[in-house]
Amino acid sequence: MDGTGLLALSEERQGQVDAVLARFFSLAKNRAAAFGPQYVTLWETLEQNTIGGKRFRPRMVMAAYQALGGQDAEAAANIGAAFELLHTALIVHDDVIDHDFVRRGVPNISGTYRDFATANGRSDRVAEHSGISAAVIAGDLALFNSYRLIDRSGVNDVTRARLIEVMDEALFASAAGELIDVDFSIQAEVPRVDDILTMERLKTAVYSFECPLQAGAILAGASDEVVTTLGDFGREIGIAYQIVDDLLGVFGTEAETGKTTVGDLREGKRTVLIAYATSTREWAEVGDLFGCEDLTDEDAARLRDVLVACGARSFTEGLARYYANRALARLAEPHIPPALRAELHPVADAVLGRVR
Amino acid sequence: MDGTGLLALSEERQGQVDAVLARFFSLAKNRAAAFGPQYVTLWETLEQNTIGGKRFRPRMVMAAYQALGGQDAEAAANIGAAFELLHTALIVHDDVIDHDFVRRGVPNISGTYRDFATANGRSDRVAEHSGISAAVIAGDLALFNSYRLIDRSGVNDVTRARLIEVMDEALFASAAGELIDVDFSIQAEVPRVDDILTMERLKTAVYSFECPLQAGAILAGASDEVVTTLGDFGREIGIAYQIVDDLLGVFGTEAETGKTTVGDLREGKRTVLIAYATSTREWAEVGDLFGCEDLTDEDAARLRDVLVACGARSFTEGLARYYANRALARLAEPHIPPALRAELHPVADAVLGRVR
Repeated sequence: MDGTGLLALSEERQGQVDAVLARFFSLAKNRAAAFGPQYVTLWETLEQNTIGGKRFRPRMVMAAYQALGGQDAEAAANIGAAFELLHTALIVHDDVIDHDFVRRGVPNISGTYRDFATANGRSDRVAEHSGISAAVIAGDLALFNSYRLIDRSGVNDVTRARLIEVMDEALFASAAGELIDVDFSIQAEVPRVDDILTMERLKTAVYSFECPLQAGAILAGASDEVVTTLGDFGREIGIAYQIVDDLLGVFGTEAETGKTTVGDLREGKRTVLIAYATSTREWAEVGDLFGCEDLTDEDAARLRDVLVACGARSFTEGLARYYANRALARLAEPHIPPALRAELHPVADAVLGRVR
Repeated sequence: MDGTGLLALSEERQGQVDAVLARFFSLAKNRAAAFGPQYVTLWETLEQNTIGGKRFRPRMVMAAYQALGGQDAEAAANIGAAFELLHTALIVHDDVIDHDFVRRGVPNISGTYRDFATANGRSDRVAEHSGISAAVIAGDLALFNSYRLIDRSGVNDVTRARLIEVMDEALFASAAGELIDVDFSIQAEVPRVDDILTMERLKTAVYSFECPLQAGAILAGASDEVVTTLGDFGREIGIAYQIVDDLLGVFGTEAETGKTTVGDLREGKRTVLIAYATSTREWAEVGDLFGCEDLTDEDAARLRDVLVACGARSFTEGLARYYANRALARLAEPHIPPALRAELHPVADAVLGRVR
């Protein structure tokens, strides 16, 4: 997922979340030292893999919390950091599933450990095994500790229990979405638009938007009504965000997204855009190019032209706007305090702003 | 790890633990149904992979708890079930790391999903990917929910916090041990005896013996002194158990261990037995056979003969007895209540009884 400046954490909040994570990793590394230097290296590598992110989920937690009058920025930073660590766990294991050794152009945990092993003269096969093993272990540690960060955040027991329910929901949904995604990847047919939306909602939107916003609201002691509405807002805007993200993966610029805009077409990523296109007559001309390992820049340009000509692009952009508008409608509900509306409106605007 | 009857849970306790797990999985499956039948199948597969175990870790929790006067069998069963689920998570991910599709002669989660995919006409490569992906996801769910089972066990908050510290320690150690084990597997040299003992202690003994016993004692409200001594007992007996397990992997009978006694020799598993043997003159005659993918039964018999002749077997048996005796010495300490001693003595006897 890529964000724009508007979706990033404010510097102050980012600093608070970073401080929580730095403290967490510092403690873990000290503790790991008793088990040998290799273990410290694993924790360092895990820490490296949490740095440089946009702290998007903490932003959602803290935005909801502070706009709802929460005063304990430290507690909110802890809960935000917990969601950040959950995110790390999920992407680390997602990379294991996808057999990816690179993320955003730099080696991920598997890639780092593969490189270590290669530098030590291991064969490619052994080096890959070493990389994947380290990522499985590191992801487990991140997952377990996402829970622990909430647990040790110092909030009262009733709130803690509710926050942990929310995080449980986040993982439960994300695992379901990941499972559907794996299933998509082994199916010959392109799934239907609504199945893709369900997958993306479960795999990413719930844990990235819906649950962090709810957690912030719960921590601020908001009413159930507000918590529910915020969850609804998060779901709608999260879906919109994923749709836009998939659009940018094909039509964005590399400067904007930090990744090649040929990648998704080359690997045959099943998105709303593609699901729509495959239902049109025009797709027959170019369908064979989609998912071609040796797709050229010219092929990609041809695919893009057809995606525009067949109406897939405009349909998908319209769908993103539809979900963003639905999200805005939730914010307009009378029980949403103006400060919260002011805080979250720019999030929806930023998503809309990413569609021309 | 294999147990004997003496190490198994009593029928009554087993029933209590099974009931907790059955209820947990029933709730999870109901909840999963809202996400589609595929997700229910994943939970069913995960449940299948927790059935048929000896409930060894719950036995440790409940033995310590009840012998220390604990009356709330339901709470102890919950904590025991939490450790059982942690065990499931760790072996499911261990199988991912080892690229194993079978455990104890039946398909594990990866194997089950690989078979599903094969039956649906997928290629071997795609079917393996599907299998491994499902196992990564299922292991994450088991791991997270091992925590949740403690969380929802209904114990008071102070006890809950302490129990979660113990489980944290269990995972922290196990991840360290797994990392060392992966490192062993990619090294050309056989590690030293003490490095193997450290790895086995961290990877398995801590979470299987030390932490479950401590959890049971904490739940029973035992003194710190008793909790510490029980932890020490668990560590020593856990190491003894692992040493014996490795011995049985080479010298046991298939009836006894449920697995082939050629497997460890064929895959080149680095154990105390082998670490000792490689330091002897005799090993040079047969060293090349060790870890041979096409090791025959005759080769295995030759390896076994040398392992006896070079003194590795008797050294290793002696080492197991040493750790078991050290464990018994801890039980003999005066602050250990007689009921607890009576409960745990048979555990040490059972381990010793597995060495001729």
